[in-house]
Amino acid sequence: MNNLPNNYFVLNSIGVIHSPYKNKAPHQPLVNDQGEFKIILNKKYSEGLKLLDTFTYIYVIYYLDKVIRNNEMIISPPWANQQKVGVFASRSPNRPNPIGISVVKILKIINNTILISGIDAFDGTPLLDIKPYIEDLDAKKDANYGWVEKGNNEDHLALHIQGIPHKH
Amino acid sequence: MNNLPNNYFVLNSIGVIHSPYKNKAPHQPLVNDQGEFKIILNKKYSEGLKLLDTFTYIYVIYYLDKVIRNNEMIISPPWANQQKVGVFASRSPNRPNPIGISVVKILKIINNTILISGIDAFDGTPLLDIKPYIEDLDAKKDANYGWVEKGNNEDHLALHIQGIPHKH
Repeated sequence: MNNLPNNYFVLNSIGVIHSPYKNKAPHQPLVNDQGEFKIILNKKYSEGLKLLDTFTYIYVIYYLDKVIRNNEMIISPPWANQQKVGVFASRSPNRPNPIGISVVKILKIINNTILISGIDAFDGTPLLDIKPYIEDLDAKKDANYGWVEKGNNEDHLALHIQGIPHKH
Repeated sequence: MNNLPNNYFVLNSIGVIHSPYKNKAPHQPLVNDQGEFKIILNKKYSEGLKLLDTFTYIYVIYYLDKVIRNNEMIISPPWANQQKVGVFASRSPNRPNPIGISVVKILKIINNTILISGIDAFDGTPLLDIKPYIEDLDAKKDANYGWVEKGNNEDHLALHIQGIPHKH
């Protein structure tokens, strides 16, 4: 299993993300979506959650196992007003290393189960890591929207940013 | 290479992070540290950077290849005033899947080289992914410090949060 070239790395699922999205997921976390969102951590890691519930937000890091990748470097997100952008300038799941990152709220932790706010991940998505989201390190007050704010229909964009389902 | 059990995943380095830290790195990104910090993306991915420079901040996701892991679930960070916390409630590099995430500023992009603000990674660290840090999705105004704010020497903590080198 470790007979891999130097620049390859093996990661191991440490739990599973559960969401109401069986076949399709929203582009971004839904703050007020209905249904249950939770992480079930493998029991052997339960102790590693000690004091996690003192944080308002966490990073959930997962493996995008349901994405069919085509290795395209230039993409055009459906809601981006036909702009063409680099894959690294997007949050598209179709990327060289299919790692997903979402910032979500902790609602409650019960043993090895973490109830969370909405997450843009399919039911059954393999969990790779959880990290605390720490105010000074991660909440950048001078952050911007980059290309997203240029040439977009603002009302439409707002639906995406807020994760409200809608037609295209 | 793909003869792995179901819950294992192979990732591939897509570039290299360069920093002045040859033997030891700070606990968190240094905002004003001296020296050059840059990412050199493999040339075949250069196109994927299109419009990345429209963002103030990016997520840099990397593989912590220099960490010796001991699989401990409860740790006591050197600056945490002897508190014992779960590994998932910490940003310790010693974790089940050694994935590092830093939020850094883009200074300049020249072809496949991204000059960035200080990053808490060793020179030569393998790059896994780059994502745009998008204001509404990632900058949580009601984030907190969790256990970090409890029982700490505030002046000492400030040095860590700001990434200022100091003695223990």
